[in-house]
Amino acid sequence: MNYLTSISIEVLKKLSIAEKTLSTAESCTGGLIASTITDVPGASKVFVGGVVVYATEMKHKLLGISDKVFNYGVISAEMAEAMSVAVRSLTGSDYSIATTGNLGPDTMEGKPRGLIYIAVATPEKVYVKELHLQGDRLSNKIEATFEALKLLIEVL
Amino acid sequence: MNYLTSISIEVLKKLSIAEKTLSTAESCTGGLIASTITDVPGASKVFVGGVVVYATEMKHKLLGISDKVFNYGVISAEMAEAMSVAVRSLTGSDYSIATTGNLGPDTMEGKPRGLIYIAVATPEKVYVKELHLQGDRLSNKIEATFEALKLLIEVL
Repeated sequence: MNYLTSISIEVLKKLSIAEKTLSTAESCTGGLIASTITDVPGASKVFVGGVVVYATEMKHKLLGISDKVFNYGVISAEMAEAMSVAVRSLTGSDYSIATTGNLGPDTMEGKPRGLIYIAVATPEKVYVKELHLQGDRLSNKIEATFEALKLLIEVL
Repeated sequence: MNYLTSISIEVLKKLSIAEKTLSTAESCTGGLIASTITDVPGASKVFVGGVVVYATEMKHKLLGISDKVFNYGVISAEMAEAMSVAVRSLTGSDYSIATTGNLGPDTMEGKPRGLIYIAVATPEKVYVKELHLQGDRLSNKIEATFEALKLLIEVL
């Protein structure tokens, strides 16, 4: 069992005991958080679903992110926060996770590779974390997924 | 490189040459199709995004699937077809892929484990395929992802 599966099991256990639900809004992680969680049997008790908003316009189309937020940039703390709030509202889940960032290899919108924002929305507030990852594209994706799940566990 | 990455590269190459876009609506595969595709650098030229509609109600909430389709069951050819049409319309992509089924280990809605429906919507029509997979939960998820990408390639 790899470490993404282990942390997913921990997340599901905590939320299951609390009888709370979870949704995801993924940009740079491209569905890996949702896929990692749903690898675990019984995930359906907690995980309701989510969106993969890979292209910039999808953040507007699927989540209704406002122009005001886009002014901060697609890779920004404000965008991660807005995505987590929007998907929580869209799905009606208790908690949500969002990711946006630049996995690499190139600079994006003037933002360096490895700059990633993750957000966790709870019924009370939103927690955002800025990551500076040093790996290649794929290891940054895995690391961002792990960090997002870890942030959720810290918040719970 | 594993065989999911190889077929993703093939899908992206074909769609990129044709200057066409792709979206996904995943139930049983839980985001693995989106994640597999976005493992490939340059995926953003083709893949716009999608939804993971894991809980039954998300198929209604996120994709607006009608009660008429639900009458066929969540695990049905009609549901896979409706999901592919809905996500194509929602995202405005040229092509889309949808999956719904029972990965196992237990029977779901009276449907045996390993019964999975995959659909590909094109600008012209929708192709649906019924799978009967024999593996465990995780290998069925990987196999369904592969078969969905293969169906798209056959259609292109």
